[in-house]
Amino acid sequence: MKIDVVISAKYIEEENLRGKAAVIIDTLRATSTISTALNNGAKEVIPVLTIEEAVAIRENIGTGLLGGERKGLKIDGFNLSNSPQDYKRETVDGKIIIFTTTNGTRAIRGAKHAEDIIIASVINGKSVSEELIKLNKDIVIINAGTYDQFSIDDFLTAGYIIDMISEKKDLELTDIAKTAQFMYKSSKDFSFAENAAHYKRMIEIEQFEDLKYCFSKDIINIVPRYKDGIIKLWN
Amino acid sequence: MKIDVVISAKYIEEENLRGKAAVIIDTLRATSTISTALNNGAKEVIPVLTIEEAVAIRENIGTGLLGGERKGLKIDGFNLSNSPQDYKRETVDGKIIIFTTTNGTRAIRGAKHAEDIIIASVINGKSVSEELIKLNKDIVIINAGTYDQFSIDDFLTAGYIIDMISEKKDLELTDIAKTAQFMYKSSKDFSFAENAAHYKRMIEIEQFEDLKYCFSKDIINIVPRYKDGIIKLWN
Repeated sequence: MKIDVVISAKYIEEENLRGKAAVIIDTLRATSTISTALNNGAKEVIPVLTIEEAVAIRENIGTGLLGGERKGLKIDGFNLSNSPQDYKRETVDGKIIIFTTTNGTRAIRGAKHAEDIIIASVINGKSVSEELIKLNKDIVIINAGTYDQFSIDDFLTAGYIIDMISEKKDLELTDIAKTAQFMYKSSKDFSFAENAAHYKRMIEIEQFEDLKYCFSKDIINIVPRYKDGIIKLWN
Repeated sequence: MKIDVVISAKYIEEENLRGKAAVIIDTLRATSTISTALNNGAKEVIPVLTIEEAVAIRENIGTGLLGGERKGLKIDGFNLSNSPQDYKRETVDGKIIIFTTTNGTRAIRGAKHAEDIIIASVINGKSVSEELIKLNKDIVIINAGTYDQFSIDDFLTAGYIIDMISEKKDLELTDIAKTAQFMYKSSKDFSFAENAAHYKRMIEIEQFEDLKYCFSKDIINIVPRYKDGIIKLWN
């Protein structure tokens, strides 16, 4: 079982994903928020690249909540921001969410050639690692990154998931995957994430609750998957 | 003073280098070997991409030693391998070296749009960091990587140089540059480099001496630069 890590959505090489499981990580906050929405009863999440595409899809299907962000902030005319706090059960239960974010949705859609596409974050990391052990195939972890750049928060989350899998399986790790695991182990409880530019942006826009929430290990026990254009719990 | 790190020659974005100092690192072994050759009196090193180009240049200038590697091994018909041990004073003093390696020479030539192009390794790391402090401009550290992939050995060397500069200057580091510094500081004396696939390849081809040499800090006090197609000590 091999694991590689791609450090930003920009560097995805579609052909390298064939036959493999892709694990999409956008810790702050897209993949944390998607997992929260589905855990709170949302029917499905449709990830889209542009605001126009989101609006067109809602018109087309005649229902659904519009969610997402630009520069970390709620989009004008949308129902929900990219904060997991917006996706409470009373808001999302039974609903379709049409979702667009700067980095995360691009990473999800860029992974379309993988055999399995799994949505991962710190909050559901343990369930994801257990699912990957069951799948027992080669893995490419795709960090969404921040505006095409490597992002410390996503890299530490990759290291966390690799570290959990390595406790149960013999792994063949690329240099970058070994580095992610080493970084996670050297940075207790994600403390090094405070150095991420993305983390600092979250402080600027006063998302203190979200930071605490998005680095809480294993508070959600679901494994969302992207298939046929939508993310949901397929099992 | 900003510092960014590019994790492989493949990911160089030429436009991002304009007006900046590019620092090329191929610890195992191109940049270590180039520094050794120049420190032992070589007149200049001409980095080229292909074996054919190397042979053509020697024919054209009518002199020079051919050096380099493919798969870590000496090229048929060449005078010298990619091992720094081949570049002793009695061999290289006063000579032109025409040099081609799999990863390093590509990184050097890919940096051509930078204002300064500096050849760095562990063995001349301190001199390079002092020169960069004097230059006082934004820096992009380019890790050659190994066959287009991130390579732990180059990344630790980047962290080593960043760490030395940070002791003297206030720096604005990207997330990846912060990660390189953190990795270096967490891995005392490059011990984590033993996990690099490239390091293991060096063990396979029994280059034990080279491994020890290439991770010896500051045994060389020169700063080679690439300009107008050649690497030499320009000052």
